[in-house]
Amino acid sequence: MDKQNIFIYDTTLRDGTQGEKINFSAEEKLRIAQRLDDMGFHYIEGGWPGSNPKDVRFFEMAKGIAFRNARLTAFGSTRKPGVRPEKCRNLRALLRADTPAVAIFGKSWDLHATEILGISLEENLEMIRDSVVFLKARKKEVIYDAEHFFDGWRCNPAYALETIKAALDAGADWIVLCDTNGGAMPHDLTAAVREVAKIVPFERLGIHVHNDCGLAVANTIAAVHAGAAMVQGTINGYGERCGNADLTSVIGNLQLKMGRRCLPEDSLRQLANLSFYVSDIANVRPIPFRPFVGTSAFAHKGGVHASAVAKNPQAYEHIRPEWVGNRQRVLVSDLAGKGSIVLKAKELGVDLGDNEAVSRKILHEIKRLEDHGFQFDAADGSLSLLMKKITGAFKEPFTLQCFNITNAKTGNNPSLCQATIKISVGDEEELTAAEGNGPVNALDHALRKALTKFYPQISEMHLVDFKVRIVEGSEGTAARVKVLLDSRDAQEVWSTIGVSENIIEASWQALVDSIQYKLSRDKLNKNRDA
Amino acid sequence: MDKQNIFIYDTTLRDGTQGEKINFSAEEKLRIAQRLDDMGFHYIEGGWPGSNPKDVRFFEMAKGIAFRNARLTAFGSTRKPGVRPEKCRNLRALLRADTPAVAIFGKSWDLHATEILGISLEENLEMIRDSVVFLKARKKEVIYDAEHFFDGWRCNPAYALETIKAALDAGADWIVLCDTNGGAMPHDLTAAVREVAKIVPFERLGIHVHNDCGLAVANTIAAVHAGAAMVQGTINGYGERCGNADLTSVIGNLQLKMGRRCLPEDSLRQLANLSFYVSDIANVRPIPFRPFVGTSAFAHKGGVHASAVAKNPQAYEHIRPEWVGNRQRVLVSDLAGKGSIVLKAKELGVDLGDNEAVSRKILHEIKRLEDHGFQFDAADGSLSLLMKKITGAFKEPFTLQCFNITNAKTGNNPSLCQATIKISVGDEEELTAAEGNGPVNALDHALRKALTKFYPQISEMHLVDFKVRIVEGSEGTAARVKVLLDSRDAQEVWSTIGVSENIIEASWQALVDSIQYKLSRDKLNKNRDA
Repeated sequence: MDKQNIFIYDTTLRDGTQGEKINFSAEEKLRIAQRLDDMGFHYIEGGWPGSNPKDVRFFEMAKGIAFRNARLTAFGSTRKPGVRPEKCRNLRALLRADTPAVAIFGKSWDLHATEILGISLEENLEMIRDSVVFLKARKKEVIYDAEHFFDGWRCNPAYALETIKAALDAGADWIVLCDTNGGAMPHDLTAAVREVAKIVPFERLGIHVHNDCGLAVANTIAAVHAGAAMVQGTINGYGERCGNADLTSVIGNLQLKMGRRCLPEDSLRQLANLSFYVSDIANVRPIPFRPFVGTSAFAHKGGVHASAVAKNPQAYEHIRPEWVGNRQRVLVSDLAGKGSIVLKAKELGVDLGDNEAVSRKILHEIKRLEDHGFQFDAADGSLSLLMKKITGAFKEPFTLQCFNITNAKTGNNPSLCQATIKISVGDEEELTAAEGNGPVNALDHALRKALTKFYPQISEMHLVDFKVRIVEGSEGTAARVKVLLDSRDAQEVWSTIGVSENIIEASWQALVDSIQYKLSRDKLNKNRDA
Repeated sequence: MDKQNIFIYDTTLRDGTQGEKINFSAEEKLRIAQRLDDMGFHYIEGGWPGSNPKDVRFFEMAKGIAFRNARLTAFGSTRKPGVRPEKCRNLRALLRADTPAVAIFGKSWDLHATEILGISLEENLEMIRDSVVFLKARKKEVIYDAEHFFDGWRCNPAYALETIKAALDAGADWIVLCDTNGGAMPHDLTAAVREVAKIVPFERLGIHVHNDCGLAVANTIAAVHAGAAMVQGTINGYGERCGNADLTSVIGNLQLKMGRRCLPEDSLRQLANLSFYVSDIANVRPIPFRPFVGTSAFAHKGGVHASAVAKNPQAYEHIRPEWVGNRQRVLVSDLAGKGSIVLKAKELGVDLGDNEAVSRKILHEIKRLEDHGFQFDAADGSLSLLMKKITGAFKEPFTLQCFNITNAKTGNNPSLCQATIKISVGDEEELTAAEGNGPVNALDHALRKALTKFYPQISEMHLVDFKVRIVEGSEGTAARVKVLLDSRDAQEVWSTIGVSENIIEASWQALVDSIQYKLSRDKLNKNRDA
């Protein structure tokens, strides 16, 4: 049994959104679900259709998607007290979600049955049995979440076990032991799982724990060690209070340290990127010191450590960072910096020539701008332009004469937003105007309209993402703003950046970089073709 | 032995500063050390006097301080290869620090001796013995850190044990087993500590682990469970790569969950404040979901949970938040139920009356708006207004007639941004204009200017933070924008929100809410006073 594969059950889209400030639209949920499916996650819990309209919409949209690896799962509770399953709105909403698997939670802690629900212990068992039987009769894979199992085990172990047996006998495919309050100590949890493993076989036993004691990852791998085959958790550990078990750490530990296969190796090498992707969609700052996947996870600051890892990485690294798509960093040395400039230029296809002064000048300029709020690791397009400007390989394709944006609002009517712009290309001038859904959108429309006459290929590109971040948050609306734009054409996606106290200025810089990048790349290709 | 007290060894000031972006001046170190001493920490590792002048200065300054509870400790390494202890600069710097205790680290992993230091295994043992004997002869309490002990144990257990015996026989007061790379699994670590505990007595055995697998807290309490009396770690888990064991969690678990006394109860109630104090000095953002001490640690968002904790807090709280100086919070979002609305209204001081239809209507409105991109768990001010508007307790303090914003840019000059606004209060109208660093800043200035005539108390408030988020990032600059504002006056800080495709519209909504909140709260206070 020791080396059997583990099933990964992701609940980022449901339990993860219970975290403070974690919020996904139905469309964002779908993007994350597809990414998890691509990577080979086994179960994706998409939401609680009985609790809110957004989750209902998510499952509607998901019906059109073919998942290749994952079983999409809808979450809900057992039937309400005193209501037959066929009449229970919650169970009916679960069926309407039309997923191959459903997860329902029931009470394992006597206190919750008697004191919170106000029902008898026997009625609680009936609710569990009825609900599982009802769902199994409708051909669902049923995952039974034994809520508060470990608290129940502590206070009334015989009854806690009875609730599990009720679900098991009713035909539940999985019994998942939950540490809902996150208060269990690993040695107690291990002992409890060992007892349960005597009646629930390995391939039907799961674990779901919270992080209130900072032990969610430890408790999850302890449960696997004690005989569970399914682990539930969330990407980056998002979740209520202190969060759920962080699947990026759980998968890293199980697969790389304990030899238990969770995902294909190829997917493991996307782990750091997945963590970043989800924090980006959630629009929360990634935690740099997050195990395995954080940007500091393999960053060496101490002089002793930095020189030792240069001799032998395992001296101060518990795994190779590449295995999870991360990388080693040494904090911070001017020489190491110049080396990476040369590497990066190569990657971007920019020719720096043989003059060392050029890469030194680029490094200096990057440091100056980053100190001002720029962030070039997120804006390859702007970085490539900056390099070309310093090497002299770049010529401005147009000059701004002036622009003017107005945004007028009357009473409760929506704003009317317009931009006029005058640019010149060589000796020719162009003055034009456009409307938009806001100042940046109007400016974008006007600039393209003015330029398309000179550079028709601009019509091939369009913006795909627009992010705004505040660089310093201590001066109210006068704080500095960082704008990141993603643009694409048929060939590629590129990112550009602008920074200013004025969001319109910052957006303008990023817009101009975005168009200049497109023109400079196409010109390069044309020269190559010629 | 099971319930003996545990010694807390804090290394925030030394190992903590190896963390990326963690940096303390000597004066700041002193303030933290005094705070830890006041709270009853047993050992405070102040720095590595052999490695940098700042730490030398810290120990100089510390000589003037009488610590009441803690033993101040200076950190260093064993003597250098081929150098007698009396001649070793590092050991001499340790003595000059003039502390009652010293900690030195030595190599337990054969790979580090032979490959990194390039010495024989026997010479390594001599370095350990010599250094301990030298320091003991000078009346120091000696804490021996067995670096990489668990990697050594994995690769060459007999030799790892020999290094420990060398330190023990030479008279070291403490043997501290270090998981320097943070790669040990709790079950392996437990087995190793049990073996060591056969030769090192409980009251001389310590543990020092890193968090590279997300297991530092678990490994620390596992070592105590297996027979260690001293735990080393840092406040908030600051430290190289993924950090050290977070003492706030370690202490919470040992004292509240395992019944092992670490600090006086009074000090335990300062734990949340200590965490905030240290992050404040380090100038890094506190992690809200940090176990025990984070602001989200006892925050309930799901409707089921919020109504259950109202009945009985232990339903979803593993400890009472007051025990560690934290507090319960209810978060309102589209996941909430009617119960959380009632609780939240109470927290915000809004009277909902006895009519159930009111809280149902509020809940419905919240769900509708959150589906549209609003996020009320991050905007208490807007939530309070929304409630007051629905109960009818709120009267609009002013009406917008119109505003107009222009942003003009010429060539490479900075933009010039102006706003004009016309509002009315009762029958009176006010038309005014203002400039700003961008459209939102200009609008903010103009609105305040227009309103101050009617509501002079507006001059008491100002904006302290401004956040912009994109709700859906898939339509370029036409995506919807969410603006969050934090405002403050002498009394409190409040957050408001706006959502629109147009950033100016979204900012306007949040600005208006911010001012309306201030006016409605002041009016309430005035009525109360009257």
